[in-house]
Amino acid sequence: MYDLNLIKSISQPSLQKIVLLVMDGLGGLPHPETGKTELETAVKPNLDLLTAMGICGLTDPVGPGITPGSAPGHLAIFGYDPIEFNVGRGILEAVGIDFELKPGDVATRGNFCTIDAEGLVTDRRAGRISTEKCIELCRLLDGIKIQNATIFIQPVKEHRFIAVFRGPGLSAEASDSDPQQTGVPAKPVTALIPAANTMADVANEFISQARIRLAPYSPANSLLLRGFSQHPHFPSMTEIYKIKAAAIASYPMYRGLARLVGMQVLKTGSTIAEEFETLARHYKNFDFFFVHIKGTDAAGEDGDFKRKVNIIEEVDRELPRIVGLRPDVIVVTGDHSSPAMIKGHSWHPVPSLLYSKICRPDQETAFSETACLYGGLGRIPATALMPLAMANALKLTKFGA
Amino acid sequence: MYDLNLIKSISQPSLQKIVLLVMDGLGGLPHPETGKTELETAVKPNLDLLTAMGICGLTDPVGPGITPGSAPGHLAIFGYDPIEFNVGRGILEAVGIDFELKPGDVATRGNFCTIDAEGLVTDRRAGRISTEKCIELCRLLDGIKIQNATIFIQPVKEHRFIAVFRGPGLSAEASDSDPQQTGVPAKPVTALIPAANTMADVANEFISQARIRLAPYSPANSLLLRGFSQHPHFPSMTEIYKIKAAAIASYPMYRGLARLVGMQVLKTGSTIAEEFETLARHYKNFDFFFVHIKGTDAAGEDGDFKRKVNIIEEVDRELPRIVGLRPDVIVVTGDHSSPAMIKGHSWHPVPSLLYSKICRPDQETAFSETACLYGGLGRIPATALMPLAMANALKLTKFGA
Repeated sequence: MYDLNLIKSISQPSLQKIVLLVMDGLGGLPHPETGKTELETAVKPNLDLLTAMGICGLTDPVGPGITPGSAPGHLAIFGYDPIEFNVGRGILEAVGIDFELKPGDVATRGNFCTIDAEGLVTDRRAGRISTEKCIELCRLLDGIKIQNATIFIQPVKEHRFIAVFRGPGLSAEASDSDPQQTGVPAKPVTALIPAANTMADVANEFISQARIRLAPYSPANSLLLRGFSQHPHFPSMTEIYKIKAAAIASYPMYRGLARLVGMQVLKTGSTIAEEFETLARHYKNFDFFFVHIKGTDAAGEDGDFKRKVNIIEEVDRELPRIVGLRPDVIVVTGDHSSPAMIKGHSWHPVPSLLYSKICRPDQETAFSETACLYGGLGRIPATALMPLAMANALKLTKFGA
Repeated sequence: MYDLNLIKSISQPSLQKIVLLVMDGLGGLPHPETGKTELETAVKPNLDLLTAMGICGLTDPVGPGITPGSAPGHLAIFGYDPIEFNVGRGILEAVGIDFELKPGDVATRGNFCTIDAEGLVTDRRAGRISTEKCIELCRLLDGIKIQNATIFIQPVKEHRFIAVFRGPGLSAEASDSDPQQTGVPAKPVTALIPAANTMADVANEFISQARIRLAPYSPANSLLLRGFSQHPHFPSMTEIYKIKAAAIASYPMYRGLARLVGMQVLKTGSTIAEEFETLARHYKNFDFFFVHIKGTDAAGEDGDFKRKVNIIEEVDRELPRIVGLRPDVIVVTGDHSSPAMIKGHSWHPVPSLLYSKICRPDQETAFSETACLYGGLGRIPATALMPLAMANALKLTKFGA
């Protein structure tokens, strides 16, 4: 929607503070019995009050009909055109666990998985082994050298790990080995361009060696790689917005995303109350806070309508911790919808609200998909949220004479 | 709005079926006596029910204020940026009558016309001669050879025909001979670029020879050419959307448009009931159906408010034939507005509705310009309709990690 250079040219520091609260996968679909979405079912007086004092609307992370992954969903909220600014899953995960990437590194996301005697994948998540087990298996594989490359294997959580390939002549233009379904063998990694031949060879040889080492560790007797990617080097939010930005997120990928756009990632406990406490503790030192709530998306993906409602209610109960700090601008939104009915991310536009003393409030008094449809923000691209938050925090000067 | 490559990269086959019902020129303007548009005047319980179960909005085929021709109007609905994807009228008409174009062919639309003794055009449509007469005259002209080119002349309907120029070194960059008014002579065809000199020479020589042959056939004693164009070779809908697409349209131009984007054109009767029966008969064999209703536009262009209302009501009466097939997604829209008050195409945004079980319904219960203004789709580019239909039919996967 906007050229970041335009925003950069008119942004200015101010004392005002912005809190951007992202409830992952916030948007939902009506429950067949009640006709109400998760957000419409939840009892959430504090979010409703914020809506009544503020302005709401529906945001499209990428565009109508497009279901965003977490990265494009968040990049849009941070103001980056999610089609122009593309980031691979492997890089995201690597940055998210504080792995120090070097120029040229190729990172992938990995799953430990189960294969049967014929080599067919029977469980893409190896029965969701414990994080402890994952750490043990990663140690087994970390540091393998193939041709001129070294492969670093670091645990993420449960069955998930990252593999970082370091060496001369590697390329991210390689295909996933993850077949994304069970009952079929893992795919060979293939070079998508001739320059990625070495990458594909190294990855396939690594997978072979890893299988031998993992053989005794059923159900985690093999692994799948996906999202071969290299560091994208985006302009930082500090550069664009002249803000001092902090991120509070309990799940690594979102910390990784925040780091990619130059936020300082704060150490935090993982409950909603702990995340909000972290915000309070660091409130003096930053003027922009990105707070990420994972639970809403996880519940939506599990198809658990009630749990999603409960998490929204939990956020609402804890919200006074944030409101009590009296931020000048509060934005509440999601990176995409994750309706329990769909059990996954979806394309439906996301309910979003913005509170500030100068937001020109609309007449909506409930934070819901239906109210947001009639809200003062209208239906806008998610990339408009940052410029709006910035404007309301007096961090944008006039464009043009 | 979207890069088709993006859509292509995330589209996937699914079993779900989409019906896209295009009521040509659907949007209207309020009748001065009742304050209600054609759509608001029509009694249409089935369309209203579909709106109540679905989601509605207003779509802009090209952009606010821009009145689209039929080609950009339809290309937008099919998801093609109507400014980027441009198609000449001659090509449209040629494809619409199943003329087999070869690479390099230049097609134009032709009218038989009446000229007086001084060569001034007195009737641009030769008194709308019968189709039989048109067929006879086309035979008279078909196959003329000039320089190294052969000119194919094929009847369309009444006074309308196509002329296809085949030969080396022809170019579509030539101006119309049709002066678009009476009382003046036909214009000479001129080359718009130097490379089109041969084209202009051949066309002008053809017109001279045709006039000699047509001289005894007053009122069809001459002809006018317009819309010199070559086959645009668009990416097909099958390629972009991975759908098996069928078109049901009784008027040649819309069949031609559908063929240009790779749809299979089904043989059909021309009434609304017959078109819907054609859909039912072929329902098993495709997962996407474009059904075109011409009557709404024709009535609008004639300034016949009541006839347009009647045709909307006829569509509504027949609609259960489609709904009864239980398509997963039904989209009802128009390629542009054709208000009876304006007697032609207009720029007003088009009422559009989308029904699916996972569309997140809005609160609107009537299919009308006014209701669509408040509908859950908001006001969106018409190019968003295909991605939305695809998403609701689970034919789009996630974008990005």
